Amino acid sequence: MPADIPFNAPVCLEVRTSRRVELTAITPLVQQVVKDSGLTSGLCVVYVPHTTAGVTINENADPDVVADLEAALAQLVPREGEYRHLEGNSDAHVKASLMGSSVSILVQDGDLLLGRWQGVFLCEFDGPRSRSVYVKLLGG
Amino acid sequence: MPADIPFNAPVCLEVRTSRRVELTAITPLVQQVVKDSGLTSGLCVVYVPHTTAGVTINENADPDVVADLEAALAQLVPREGEYRHLEGNSDAHVKASLMGSSVSILVQDGDLLLGRWQGVFLCEFDGPRSRSVYVKLLGG
Amino acid sequence: MPADIPFNAPVCLEVRTSRRVELTAITPLVQQVVKDSGLTSGLCVVYVPHTTAGVTINENADPDVVADLEAALAQLVPREGEYRHLEGNSDAHVKASLMGSSVSILVQDGDLLLGRWQGVFLCEFDGPRSRSVYVKLLGG
Repeated sequence: MPADIPFNAPVCLEVRTSRRVELTAITPLVQQVVKDSGLTSGLCVVYVPHTTAGVTINENADPDVVADLEAALAQLVPREGEYRHLEGNSDAHVKASLMGSSVSILVQDGDLLLGRWQGVFLCEFDGPRSRSVYVKLLGG
Repeated sequence: MPADIPFNAPVCLEVRTSRRVELTAITPLVQQVVKDSGLTSGLCVVYVPHTTAGVTINENADPDVVADLEAALAQLVPREGEYRHLEGNSDAHVKASLMGSSVSILVQDGDLLLGRWQGVFLCEFDGPRSRSVYVKLLGG
Repeated sequence: MPADIPFNAPVCLEVRTSRRVELTAITPLVQQVVKDSGLTSGLCVVYVPHTTAGVTINENADPDVVADLEAALAQLVPREGEYRHLEGNSDAHVKASLMGSSVSILVQDGDLLLGRWQGVFLCEFDGPRSRSVYVKLLGG
Protein backbone atom coordinates (compact mmCIF):
# COMPACT_ATOMS: atom_id res chain seq x y z
CA MET A 1 0.00 0.00 0.00
CA PRO A 2 1.85 3.10 -1.21
CA ALA A 3 2.08 6.10 1.09
CA ASP A 4 -0.22 8.21 -1.09
CA ILE A 5 -3.25 6.00 -0.58
CA PRO A 6 -5.39 7.49 2.20
CA PHE A 7 -6.13 5.51 5.36
CA ASN A 8 -9.68 4.89 4.28
CA ALA A 9 -8.95 2.40 1.51
CA PRO A 10 -9.32 -1.13 2.91
CA VAL A 11 -6.52 -3.52 1.97
CA CYS A 12 -7.51 -6.97 0.71
CA LEU A 13 -5.14 -9.76 1.66
CA GLU A 14 -5.30 -13.11 -0.12
CA VAL A 15 -4.55 -16.08 2.12
CA ARG A 16 -4.13 -19.64 0.86
CA THR A 17 -5.26 -22.29 3.31
CA SER A 18 -4.06 -25.89 3.14
CA ARG A 19 -6.55 -28.02 5.09
CA ARG A 20 -10.32 -28.21 5.54
CA VAL A 21 -10.01 -26.76 9.04
CA GLU A 22 -7.00 -24.62 9.75
CA LEU A 23 -6.32 -21.64 11.96
CA THR A 24 -3.74 -19.67 10.00
CA ALA A 25 -1.68 -16.94 11.65
CA ILE A 26 -1.94 -13.70 9.67
CA THR A 27 -0.48 -11.31 12.25
CA PRO A 28 2.57 -10.25 10.18
CA LEU A 29 0.36 -9.53 7.16
CA VAL A 30 -1.91 -7.30 9.22
CA GLN A 31 1.03 -5.58 10.91
CA GLN A 32 2.50 -4.83 7.49
CA VAL A 33 -0.71 -3.10 6.39
CA VAL A 34 -0.54 -0.89 9.48
CA LYS A 35 3.12 -0.06 8.89
CA ASP A 36 2.63 0.67 5.21
CA SER A 37 -0.26 3.01 6.00
CA GLY A 38 1.72 5.29 8.27
CA LEU A 39 -1.18 5.35 10.72
CA THR A 40 0.10 6.04 14.22
CA SER A 41 -3.07 5.79 16.30
CA GLY A 42 -6.54 4.37 15.78
CA LEU A 43 -8.33 1.12 15.12
CA CYS A 44 -7.60 -1.83 12.84
CA VAL A 45 -10.59 -3.94 11.79
CA VAL A 46 -9.78 -7.33 10.25
CA TYR A 47 -12.84 -8.54 8.35
CA VAL A 48 -13.46 -11.89 6.65
CA PRO A 49 -16.04 -11.67 3.81
CA HIS A 50 -16.81 -15.41 3.85
CA THR A 51 -19.49 -17.48 5.60
CA THR A 52 -17.47 -20.64 6.21
CA ALA A 53 -14.43 -18.87 7.63
CA GLY A 54 -13.95 -16.48 10.51
CA VAL A 55 -11.22 -14.69 12.41
CA THR A 56 -10.06 -14.85 16.02
CA ILE A 57 -7.28 -13.73 18.32
CA ASN A 58 -5.51 -16.33 20.42
CA GLU A 59 -2.09 -17.58 21.45
CA ASN A 60 0.57 -17.40 18.81
CA ALA A 61 3.43 -19.03 20.74
CA ASP A 62 2.54 -22.71 21.08
CA PRO A 63 0.82 -24.08 17.94
CA ASP A 64 -0.88 -26.69 20.15
CA VAL A 65 -3.21 -23.95 21.41
CA VAL A 66 -4.89 -23.41 18.06
CA ALA A 67 -4.79 -27.17 17.38
CA ASP A 68 -6.78 -27.59 20.59
CA LEU A 69 -9.16 -24.85 19.49
CA GLU A 70 -9.71 -26.60 16.14
CA ALA A 71 -10.37 -29.89 17.97
CA ALA A 72 -12.70 -28.30 20.52
CA LEU A 73 -14.77 -26.71 17.77
CA ALA A 74 -14.92 -30.06 15.96
CA GLN A 75 -16.35 -31.64 19.11
CA LEU A 76 -18.86 -28.84 19.64
CA VAL A 77 -20.04 -28.79 16.03
CA PRO A 78 -19.54 -32.19 14.35
CA ARG A 79 -19.05 -32.26 10.61
CA GLU A 80 -21.76 -34.88 10.22
CA GLY A 81 -25.14 -34.19 11.75
CA GLU A 82 -28.81 -33.71 11.06
CA TYR A 83 -28.20 -30.62 8.98
CA ARG A 84 -30.66 -29.27 6.43
CA HIS A 85 -28.20 -27.40 4.23
CA LEU A 86 -27.14 -29.83 1.53
CA GLU A 87 -23.62 -28.65 0.80
CA GLY A 88 -22.11 -30.66 3.66
CA ASN A 89 -20.53 -27.62 5.27
CA SER A 90 -23.11 -26.58 7.86
CA ASP A 91 -20.55 -27.18 10.59
CA ALA A 92 -18.32 -24.61 8.91
CA HIS A 93 -21.10 -22.00 8.90
CA VAL A 94 -21.81 -22.58 12.59
CA LYS A 95 -18.13 -22.34 13.54
CA ALA A 96 -17.78 -19.14 11.50
CA SER A 97 -20.50 -17.48 13.60
CA LEU A 98 -18.98 -18.80 16.84
CA MET A 99 -15.62 -17.21 16.00
CA GLY A 100 -17.05 -14.14 14.27
CA SER A 101 -16.40 -12.32 11.03
CA SER A 102 -14.15 -9.59 12.38
CA VAL A 103 -11.74 -8.61 15.10
CA SER A 104 -10.91 -5.06 16.18
CA ILE A 105 -7.37 -4.29 17.29
CA LEU A 106 -6.05 -1.02 18.67
CA VAL A 107 -3.28 0.77 16.81
CA GLN A 108 -0.81 2.72 18.92
CA ASP A 109 2.62 4.11 18.05
CA GLY A 110 2.23 2.84 14.50
CA ASP A 111 1.74 -0.82 15.42
CA LEU A 112 -0.97 -3.24 16.52
CA LEU A 113 -1.42 -3.08 20.29
CA LEU A 114 -1.55 -6.87 20.75
CA GLY A 115 -0.87 -8.67 24.01
CA ARG A 116 2.43 -10.49 24.36
CA TRP A 117 1.01 -13.89 23.38
CA GLN A 118 -1.70 -12.73 20.97
CA GLY A 119 -1.82 -13.42 17.26
CA VAL A 120 -4.52 -12.93 14.63
CA PHE A 121 -5.81 -16.13 13.02
CA LEU A 122 -7.86 -16.63 9.90
CA CYS A 123 -10.19 -19.51 10.80
CA GLU A 124 -10.64 -21.73 7.78
CA PHE A 125 -13.53 -24.17 8.28
CA ASP A 126 -14.20 -25.33 4.71
CA GLY A 127 -10.88 -25.36 2.89
CA PRO A 128 -8.45 -25.66 1.48
CA ARG A 129 -8.95 -22.63 -0.71
CA SER A 130 -7.97 -19.04 -1.24
CA ARG A 131 -9.57 -16.60 1.19
CA SER A 132 -9.84 -12.83 1.26
CA VAL A 133 -9.22 -10.82 4.40
CA TYR A 134 -9.98 -7.10 4.50
CA VAL A 135 -7.92 -4.84 6.71
CA LYS A 136 -9.47 -1.46 7.46
CA LEU A 137 -7.75 1.30 9.39
CA LEU A 138 -9.50 4.14 11.17
CA GLY A 139 -7.53 7.02 12.62
CA GLY A 140 -8.45 8.48 15.98
CA MET B 1 -32.50 9.45 8.24
CA PRO B 2 -32.60 12.86 6.55
CA ALA B 3 -29.47 14.10 4.81
CA ASP B 4 -28.95 16.88 7.34
CA ILE B 5 -28.39 14.56 10.28
CA PRO B 6 -24.64 14.17 10.82
CA PHE B 7 -22.99 10.76 10.59
CA ASN B 8 -22.59 10.55 14.32
CA ALA B 9 -26.25 10.05 15.20
CA PRO B 10 -26.89 6.30 15.61
CA VAL B 11 -30.03 5.07 13.90
CA CYS B 12 -32.33 2.80 15.91
CA LEU B 13 -34.12 0.13 13.91
CA GLU B 14 -37.11 -1.69 15.38
CA VAL B 15 -37.36 -5.33 14.33
CA ARG B 16 -40.34 -7.56 15.10
CA THR B 17 -39.44 -11.21 15.60
CA SER B 18 -41.98 -14.02 15.24
CA ARG B 19 -40.57 -17.05 17.07
CA ARG B 20 -38.72 -17.76 20.32
CA VAL B 21 -35.52 -18.45 18.37
CA GLU B 22 -35.18 -16.82 14.98
CA LEU B 23 -32.29 -15.49 12.95
CA THR B 24 -33.81 -12.56 11.08
CA ALA B 25 -32.07 -11.04 8.07
CA ILE B 26 -31.69 -7.28 8.52
CA THR B 27 -29.20 -6.58 5.73
CA PRO B 28 -31.46 -4.32 3.64
CA LEU B 29 -32.35 -2.24 6.72
CA VAL B 30 -28.69 -1.70 7.53
CA GLN B 31 -27.84 -0.95 3.90
CA GLN B 32 -30.58 1.66 3.83
CA VAL B 33 -29.09 3.44 6.83
CA VAL B 34 -25.74 3.60 5.06
CA LYS B 35 -27.30 4.91 1.85
CA ASP B 36 -29.42 7.50 3.63
CA SER B 37 -26.38 8.78 5.50
CA GLY B 38 -24.36 9.57 2.39
CA LEU B 39 -21.27 8.07 4.01
CA THR B 40 -18.89 6.83 1.34
CA SER B 41 -16.13 5.22 3.39
CA GLY B 42 -15.78 4.05 6.98
CA LEU B 43 -17.17 1.57 9.42
CA CYS B 44 -20.70 0.43 10.22
CA VAL B 45 -21.29 -0.99 13.70
CA VAL B 46 -24.53 -2.91 14.19
CA TYR B 47 -25.25 -3.12 17.91
CA VAL B 48 -27.97 -5.03 19.76
CA PRO B 49 -28.84 -3.49 23.17
CA HIS B 50 -30.42 -6.69 24.52
CA THR B 51 -29.08 -9.57 26.60
CA THR B 52 -31.16 -12.39 25.11
CA ALA B 53 -30.50 -11.45 21.48
CA GLY B 54 -27.34 -11.00 19.46
CA VAL B 55 -26.17 -10.34 15.95
CA THR B 56 -24.13 -12.36 13.48
CA ILE B 57 -23.04 -12.46 9.86
CA ASN B 58 -23.64 -15.64 7.90
CA GLU B 59 -25.01 -16.97 4.62
CA ASN B 60 -28.02 -15.15 3.25
CA ALA B 61 -28.69 -17.35 0.20
CA ASP B 62 -29.98 -20.68 1.52
CA PRO B 63 -32.26 -20.24 4.58
CA ASP B 64 -31.27 -23.74 5.68
CA VAL B 65 -27.92 -22.35 6.77
CA VAL B 66 -29.37 -20.19 9.54
CA ALA B 67 -31.87 -22.93 10.38
CA ASP B 68 -28.87 -25.20 10.95
CA LEU B 69 -27.22 -22.50 13.05
CA GLU B 70 -30.35 -22.17 15.20
CA ALA B 71 -30.45 -25.97 15.64
CA ALA B 72 -26.74 -26.24 16.42
CA LEU B 73 -27.03 -23.57 19.11
CA ALA B 74 -30.05 -25.37 20.58
CA GLN B 75 -27.96 -28.52 20.87
CA LEU B 76 -25.02 -26.68 22.41
CA VAL B 77 -27.13 -24.76 24.93
CA PRO B 78 -30.36 -26.62 25.76
CA ARG B 79 -33.35 -24.58 26.84
CA GLU B 80 -33.86 -26.79 29.89
CA GLY B 81 -30.90 -27.34 32.18
CA GLU B 82 -29.58 -26.82 35.67
CA TYR B 83 -29.73 -23.07 35.41
CA ARG B 84 -29.82 -20.74 38.41
CA HIS B 85 -31.52 -17.78 36.74
CA LEU B 86 -35.23 -18.26 37.31
CA GLU B 87 -36.67 -16.59 34.22
CA GLY B 88 -36.29 -19.71 32.08
CA ASN B 89 -34.19 -17.93 29.47
CA SER B 90 -30.64 -18.68 30.56
CA ASP B 91 -30.06 -20.47 27.27
CA ALA B 92 -30.90 -17.23 25.49
CA HIS B 93 -28.34 -15.27 27.52
CA VAL B 94 -25.62 -17.84 26.78
CA LYS B 95 -26.39 -17.87 23.05
CA ALA B 96 -26.36 -14.07 22.99
CA SER B 97 -22.79 -14.05 24.28
CA LEU B 98 -21.75 -16.81 21.85
CA MET B 99 -22.98 -14.75 18.90
CA GLY B 100 -22.02 -11.37 20.33
CA SER B 101 -23.73 -8.01 20.73
CA SER B 102 -22.27 -6.31 17.67
CA VAL B 103 -20.80 -6.79 14.23
CA SER B 104 -18.52 -4.36 12.42
CA ILE B 105 -18.83 -4.06 8.66
CA LEU B 106 -16.66 -1.99 6.35
CA VAL B 107 -18.28 0.75 4.28
CA GLN B 108 -16.79 1.41 0.87
CA ASP B 109 -18.17 3.31 -2.12
CA GLY B 110 -21.28 4.17 -0.14
CA ASP B 111 -22.31 0.59 0.61
CA LEU B 112 -21.61 -2.25 3.03
CA LEU B 113 -18.56 -4.22 1.91
CA LEU B 114 -20.14 -7.63 2.49
CA GLY B 115 -18.98 -10.85 0.90
CA ARG B 116 -21.11 -12.31 -1.87
CA TRP B 117 -23.00 -14.71 0.41
CA GLN B 118 -22.98 -12.66 3.59
CA GLY B 119 -26.01 -11.19 5.32
CA VAL B 120 -26.52 -9.57 8.71
CA PHE B 121 -28.84 -11.44 11.09
CA LEU B 122 -30.50 -10.31 14.27
CA CYS B 123 -30.35 -13.38 16.51
CA GLU B 124 -33.54 -13.61 18.54
CA PHE B 125 -33.21 -16.14 21.37
CA ASP B 126 -36.14 -15.22 23.63
CA GLY B 127 -38.91 -13.97 21.38
CA PRO B 128 -41.16 -13.26 19.81
CA ARG B 129 -40.98 -9.57 20.59
CA SER B 130 -39.88 -6.22 19.27
CA ARG B 131 -36.14 -5.65 19.30
CA SER B 132 -34.00 -2.57 18.84
CA VAL B 133 -30.91 -2.57 16.67
CA TYR B 134 -28.56 0.43 16.64
CA VAL B 135 -26.62 1.25 13.50
CA LYS B 136 -23.65 3.54 14.00
CA LEU B 137 -21.52 4.90 11.17
CA LEU B 138 -17.97 6.14 11.52
CA GLY B 139 -16.25 7.91 8.68
CA GLY B 140 -12.62 7.19 7.87
CA MET C 1 -7.48 10.37 32.27
CA PRO C 2 -6.86 14.12 32.47
CA ALA C 3 -8.74 16.37 30.08
CA ASP C 4 -5.58 17.32 28.20
CA ILE C 5 -4.93 13.80 26.92
CA PRO C 6 -6.38 13.48 23.41
CA PHE C 7 -9.07 10.91 22.66
CA ASN C 8 -6.64 8.73 20.85
CA ALA C 9 -4.68 7.52 23.89
CA PRO C 10 -6.08 4.15 24.97
CA VAL C 11 -6.62 3.80 28.70
CA CYS C 12 -5.33 0.63 30.36
CA LEU C 13 -7.43 -0.63 33.25
CA GLU C 14 -6.03 -3.19 35.68
CA VAL C 15 -8.59 -5.67 36.97
CA ARG C 16 -7.90 -8.18 39.74
CA THR C 17 -9.85 -11.42 39.39
CA SER C 18 -10.49 -13.76 42.32
CA ARG C 19 -11.34 -17.18 40.86
CA ARG C 20 -10.13 -19.39 38.03
CA VAL C 21 -13.30 -18.64 36.04
CA GLU C 22 -15.08 -15.41 36.80
CA LEU C 23 -17.12 -12.96 34.78
CA THR C 24 -16.30 -9.63 36.38
CA ALA C 25 -18.46 -6.57 35.74
CA ILE C 26 -16.32 -3.66 34.56
CA THR C 27 -19.08 -1.34 33.31
CA PRO C 28 -18.44 1.50 35.79
CA LEU C 29 -14.72 1.48 34.97
CA VAL C 30 -15.43 1.77 31.25
CA GLN C 31 -18.07 4.45 31.80
CA GLN C 32 -15.57 6.46 33.84
CA VAL C 33 -13.08 6.40 30.98
CA VAL C 34 -15.74 7.77 28.64
CA LYS C 35 -16.74 10.50 31.09
CA ASP C 36 -13.15 11.51 31.82
CA SER C 37 -12.43 11.78 28.10
CA GLY C 38 -15.15 14.32 27.40
CA LEU C 39 -16.09 12.41 24.24
CA THR C 40 -19.73 13.04 23.41
CA SER C 41 -20.25 10.79 20.38
CA GLY C 42 -18.39 7.89 18.84
CA LEU C 43 -17.29 4.35 19.56
CA CYS C 44 -15.79 2.69 22.63
CA VAL C 45 -13.72 -0.45 22.01
CA VAL C 46 -12.96 -2.57 25.07
CA TYR C 47 -10.03 -4.84 24.26
CA VAL C 48 -8.51 -7.65 26.31
CA PRO C 49 -4.82 -8.32 25.45
CA HIS C 50 -4.82 -11.84 26.91
CA THR C 51 -5.39 -15.28 25.39
CA THR C 52 -7.07 -16.96 28.36
CA ALA C 53 -9.51 -14.15 29.05
CA GLY C 54 -12.12 -12.40 26.93
CA VAL C 55 -14.86 -9.84 27.17
CA THR C 56 -18.61 -10.01 26.68
CA ILE C 57 -21.78 -8.02 27.17
CA ASN C 58 -24.64 -9.63 29.07
CA GLU C 59 -27.14 -9.05 31.87
CA ASN C 60 -25.89 -7.03 34.78
CA ALA C 61 -29.01 -7.24 37.01
CA ASP C 62 -29.21 -10.85 38.23
CA PRO C 63 -25.76 -12.32 38.97
CA ASP C 64 -27.21 -15.77 38.27
CA VAL C 65 -27.12 -14.94 34.56
CA VAL C 66 -23.35 -14.77 34.35
CA ALA C 67 -23.08 -17.72 36.78
CA ASP C 68 -25.15 -19.68 34.25
CA LEU C 69 -22.91 -18.46 31.44
CA GLU C 70 -19.81 -19.60 33.33
CA ALA C 71 -21.43 -23.02 33.93
CA ALA C 72 -22.60 -23.38 30.33
CA LEU C 73 -19.10 -22.65 29.03
CA ALA C 74 -17.67 -25.20 31.49
CA GLN C 75 -20.02 -27.81 30.05
CA LEU C 76 -19.18 -26.89 26.46
CA VAL C 77 -15.43 -26.84 27.01
CA PRO C 78 -14.40 -29.11 29.91
CA ARG C 79 -11.24 -28.25 31.81
CA GLU C 80 -9.94 -31.78 31.43
CA GLY C 81 -9.81 -33.25 27.95
CA GLU C 82 -7.56 -34.65 25.27
CA TYR C 83 -5.71 -31.38 24.84
CA ARG C 84 -2.25 -31.11 23.32
CA HIS C 85 -1.20 -27.86 24.97
CA LEU C 86 0.58 -28.86 28.17
CA GLU C 87 -0.17 -25.89 30.41
CA GLY C 88 -3.57 -27.30 31.48
CA ASN C 89 -5.44 -24.21 30.32
CA SER C 90 -6.58 -25.16 26.81
CA ASP C 91 -10.19 -24.79 27.93
CA ALA C 92 -9.44 -21.18 28.83
CA HIS C 93 -8.03 -20.47 25.37
CA VAL C 94 -11.09 -21.98 23.68
CA LYS C 95 -13.50 -20.02 25.86
CA ALA C 96 -11.57 -16.82 25.19
CA SER C 97 -12.16 -17.24 21.44
CA LEU C 98 -15.84 -18.11 21.99
CA MET C 99 -16.41 -14.87 23.91
CA GLY C 100 -13.99 -12.77 21.86
CA SER C 101 -11.18 -10.34 22.64
CA SER C 102 -13.16 -7.11 22.26
CA VAL C 103 -16.58 -5.51 22.40
CA SER C 104 -17.61 -2.33 20.63
CA ILE C 105 -20.09 -0.04 22.37
CA LEU C 106 -21.64 3.13 20.98
CA VAL C 107 -21.01 6.41 22.77
CA GLN C 108 -23.82 8.97 22.70
CA ASP C 109 -24.41 12.08 24.79
CA GLY C 110 -21.17 11.45 26.63
CA ASP C 111 -22.05 7.98 27.90
CA LEU C 112 -22.07 4.35 26.81
CA LEU C 113 -25.25 3.56 24.85
CA LEU C 114 -25.91 0.27 26.66
CA GLY C 115 -29.27 -1.46 26.83
CA ARG C 116 -31.16 -1.29 30.11
CA TRP C 117 -29.92 -4.71 31.33
CA GLN C 118 -26.51 -4.74 29.67
CA GLY C 119 -23.18 -4.71 31.43
CA VAL C 120 -19.61 -5.27 30.25
CA PHE C 121 -17.86 -8.31 31.69
CA LEU C 122 -14.21 -9.24 31.72
CA CYS C 123 -14.24 -13.02 31.22
CA GLU C 124 -11.51 -14.57 33.34
CA PHE C 125 -10.90 -18.18 32.35
CA ASP C 126 -7.49 -18.90 33.92
CA GLY C 127 -7.29 -16.83 37.09
CA PRO C 128 -7.10 -15.55 39.62
CA ARG C 129 -4.67 -12.91 38.45
CA SER C 130 -4.34 -9.31 37.43
CA ARG C 131 -5.64 -8.55 33.93
CA SER C 132 -5.28 -5.57 31.64
CA VAL C 133 -8.23 -4.14 29.73
CA TYR C 134 -7.68 -1.45 27.12
CA VAL C 135 -10.40 1.11 26.49
CA LYS C 136 -10.12 2.98 23.21
CA LEU C 137 -12.39 5.83 22.19
CA LEU C 138 -13.00 6.96 18.62
CA GLY C 139 -14.92 10.12 17.90
CA GLY C 140 -17.44 10.27 15.11
